[in-house]
Amino acid sequence: MSTVVADDYPTRVPNEPRIFRRPDPVVWGDAERRNGDVAAYARDGYVQRERAISVARVRECLSEIERIGADPAMADDPRVIREDGTQAVRSIFDVHLLSEAVWAAVEESGAIELAQEILGSDVTVHQSRLNYKPGFAGGAFYWHSDFETWHAEDGMPRPRACSASIALTPNREYNGPLMIMPGTQRFFVQTAGQTPDDFYNESLVTTGPTVGSPSEEAIAELGESHGIDLITGPEGSMTMFDCNALHASGGNITPTPRSNIFVVFNSVENGLTEPFAGTAPRPEYLARR
Amino acid sequence: MSTVVADDYPTRVPNEPRIFRRPDPVVWGDAERRNGDVAAYARDGYVQRERAISVARVRECLSEIERIGADPAMADDPRVIREDGTQAVRSIFDVHLLSEAVWAAVEESGAIELAQEILGSDVTVHQSRLNYKPGFAGGAFYWHSDFETWHAEDGMPRPRACSASIALTPNREYNGPLMIMPGTQRFFVQTAGQTPDDFYNESLVTTGPTVGSPSEEAIAELGESHGIDLITGPEGSMTMFDCNALHASGGNITPTPRSNIFVVFNSVENGLTEPFAGTAPRPEYLARR
Repeated sequence: MSTVVADDYPTRVPNEPRIFRRPDPVVWGDAERRNGDVAAYARDGYVQRERAISVARVRECLSEIERIGADPAMADDPRVIREDGTQAVRSIFDVHLLSEAVWAAVEESGAIELAQEILGSDVTVHQSRLNYKPGFAGGAFYWHSDFETWHAEDGMPRPRACSASIALTPNREYNGPLMIMPGTQRFFVQTAGQTPDDFYNESLVTTGPTVGSPSEEAIAELGESHGIDLITGPEGSMTMFDCNALHASGGNITPTPRSNIFVVFNSVENGLTEPFAGTAPRPEYLARR
Repeated sequence: MSTVVADDYPTRVPNEPRIFRRPDPVVWGDAERRNGDVAAYARDGYVQRERAISVARVRECLSEIERIGADPAMADDPRVIREDGTQAVRSIFDVHLLSEAVWAAVEESGAIELAQEILGSDVTVHQSRLNYKPGFAGGAFYWHSDFETWHAEDGMPRPRACSASIALTPNREYNGPLMIMPGTQRFFVQTAGQTPDDFYNESLVTTGPTVGSPSEEAIAELGESHGIDLITGPEGSMTMFDCNALHASGGNITPTPRSNIFVVFNSVENGLTEPFAGTAPRPEYLARR
């Protein structure tokens, strides 16, 4: 028997998706008054800290890609995503559980304390992964709000979550860095369309608009009113961004590889319920319950 | 009967393509000593001038896209490239002949005098076009040297040509601007592979590596040694770049449209011969003879 849960963020609507002001705060609790980084995050939906982890730690994390990729115990693990037909690793999900070095990097970066300040509570890891894309091989990720997906497909009730991206390679203007529309964290952008079953198999590899993507009209309107910031910086930088900020990343046709650690923190007061799209829950390595 | 022409730039080789120092100068004549822009061009392979044409002229040129697109006399003209299945114009070739407004913009920009200084002679227009890409719709152009193509497929003997790009919309870091590896104009990058007949039909719409593309190894080597410059600036800017500089442009998933006038100037002392790839010459609107 399922309980009826009031839905303040209806999405995947049949038609005429709307943009509305988010009824919840961006920064929970009263941290905003005390800390420059948290104030910047409240305003822009993100904040970046350079040199959040040391160069030695960066190297240690990069070497984990090879170690875990070569581990016979991980050969058929669905959490290790490999390049079609090769052993080359592209993503390792649950990396906070699979690698002590990566978890040490997350601790060193200050991301956990920052997430606690922003979310005004203790936090859990909703999802984590280590990404590696060689040069010449980076597809784009189209504009989206992470929370829109997590709400629809994972049953995350409220946008009380944030993501840390720790750069293991330099992010430059030209190698497909994170693009954020600053300020859009305050608006929920409904999307139109039905969510297919097991949609995550498809959505994780799609580079263009799909189910869960805002309309071109909505993206153009918010791009016009809010502009676009490119998040660039040296390896070792940590960017924390709001789960509801509209963001994307461009493709990469340069020789420069891209690698990062990605950890989503959710408030312990924001535990997952049934997916609001009415679909089956996604696997635990995509959304820890 | 064809005449044997000595080929200082052999390319489309069967295997093991090489990179070698270009035997010809980048700046011809003695202009380099007299002019800051020409000296910068000699060093970097490009130079940009902001406010090269007025905002009024920019608007006038943009309105030419609609005018020429709607002209019944141009309905079946192969020089007007339209979006599949619609009347929407994406490119107009020979635009220096088809639009007085565009030619006036080219004259206003100072591109002709700059090309004469760089090439040390009078110049002719090898190719011209007006491009328009709406937002959300810009594919990437992979790394290439224009001269490599013009030499192989048009019979341009020497790299004594340069291209002016006049921006009709702002070029930003995030909407797929021109990327140049500064200094690579001094190196000829051979490519491997045979050139199919009528290859231009395919190569003009390809976004990834193809015949005429350098190897990933060559691109990575030159990217490492020369770096990558992004050419950004407001509408009305004019960028002149060397025909042999390695360049590319990223895709564009932002709402921002991109439009520019593109004119290739060739020295009158560098008239086209038979294509060095042994293929039939491309149409006149791609390579004026």
